[in-house]
Amino acid sequence: MRKIYVIGIGAGDPDHLTLQAAKAIGRTDVFFLIDKGEAKDSMIELRRRLLKGYARPSRRIATGQDPDRDRMPDDYTGTVDDWRRRRSAMTEALITEHLLADEIGAFLVWGDPTLYDSTIAILDEILERGAIEFEYEVIPGISSVSALAAKHRAPLNRVGRPVQITTGRRLADEGWPEGVDDVVVMLDGRQAFTGVKDADIYWGAYVGTADEILLAGPVEETREEIARVRAEARERHGWIMDTYLLRRRDA
Amino acid sequence: MRKIYVIGIGAGDPDHLTLQAAKAIGRTDVFFLIDKGEAKDSMIELRRRLLKGYARPSRRIATGQDPDRDRMPDDYTGTVDDWRRRRSAMTEALITEHLLADEIGAFLVWGDPTLYDSTIAILDEILERGAIEFEYEVIPGISSVSALAAKHRAPLNRVGRPVQITTGRRLADEGWPEGVDDVVVMLDGRQAFTGVKDADIYWGAYVGTADEILLAGPVEETREEIARVRAEARERHGWIMDTYLLRRRDA
Repeated sequence: MRKIYVIGIGAGDPDHLTLQAAKAIGRTDVFFLIDKGEAKDSMIELRRRLLKGYARPSRRIATGQDPDRDRMPDDYTGTVDDWRRRRSAMTEALITEHLLADEIGAFLVWGDPTLYDSTIAILDEILERGAIEFEYEVIPGISSVSALAAKHRAPLNRVGRPVQITTGRRLADEGWPEGVDDVVVMLDGRQAFTGVKDADIYWGAYVGTADEILLAGPVEETREEIARVRAEARERHGWIMDTYLLRRRDA
Repeated sequence: MRKIYVIGIGAGDPDHLTLQAAKAIGRTDVFFLIDKGEAKDSMIELRRRLLKGYARPSRRIATGQDPDRDRMPDDYTGTVDDWRRRRSAMTEALITEHLLADEIGAFLVWGDPTLYDSTIAILDEILERGAIEFEYEVIPGISSVSALAAKHRAPLNRVGRPVQITTGRRLADEGWPEGVDDVVVMLDGRQAFTGVKDADIYWGAYVGTADEILLAGPVEETREEIARVRAEARERHGWIMDTYLLRRRDA
């Protein structure tokens, strides 16, 4: 039986790697790398460093080309579904071609594979089609949410209270979510925080890497600086990965 | 300057430890262990194993006694606040007595220190009182939430949708939270899932340990089994640490 690891490699700091992830990397015969066609140099460098440090010398690398994807579509879910189908077909071909019987393959996933990542859904879709068989195992990683909160020393929740993790798109379209005073926002291409009031923000970009930027304060006093710093950083690096916690102030 | 690490050690599996956490353990002079007066043998064993594996031989251990705490109080927030004040006084005394100038101390925190853990708030309270000075750093860990989702291979969120992390108390008192179809429940002493309908449950206890139990399915068909298994496990171990994801089925 072929086996595949879905390995969370943490949010940017090579030392976010868990011992479990390092061991799984060391057992892997074939690493599946999906070329996203973006110049995320520090991510590629991290992957290279982890393979150099923990993979066996005989490991092979199978590279696939990520299907094109509209990053700011009107029909977000539909677009992602369509992209996922094309990506799962590409991934299935990659596994079929490169992973031999009784070998172990692995996907290295940024952050935690169970939070805003599609690898698990793609593997489920491939298994459902039934053309190839494999077993797979998910290895948890330090999410960008945990990394952000740790750097700010800001607990995600307050005593006995809930926290919601949502997207910038939702915050922009629907406003502050019902029933929570603490909200973590991911995938915010719209700077939805600029529309927020009466809250503190704990913002971070490239958290855990040498390029890390952290800013925090009342959102009214901080949003212009964050927007400016964010735009500059995005321009400089060609991409940005940022996350933030919004904490509504108690009345 | 004295320095303190707040180290997330993961959800039960010793291999959840990150390289960052292992390195911090190796730099620590004094470990602060709070005796919770409960027979959590596997937790004590994990701590012992991590110290044996990664701490320097000269490391010291300073043990404090956790203040008594009503685990099922009527006024949850007030009770926790009061307990936290007593615990912060105890913790402050422990640091003052045992951590010398320029030494490094550490708290080993189950799971992730930013999710339903009080260590950060306690250190902030001590610093606010101003009687002693230290700097502190938070090292993220694999949370029980990430560990649970990985074992079930169940993403926490669906595409572009939010996920809320809340407590069993809230779910029992207030019902299903507004605006989300995916809810992670922690600290559920009441088995609040038994009141839930039209959802799938992904439940786990002692996740990552040798005692791990996982159950999943439509909540209507699974809740009696979970309640039974949970009661038996709690009886057998003298304590239980369980978490679950509830996923509302799409119409």
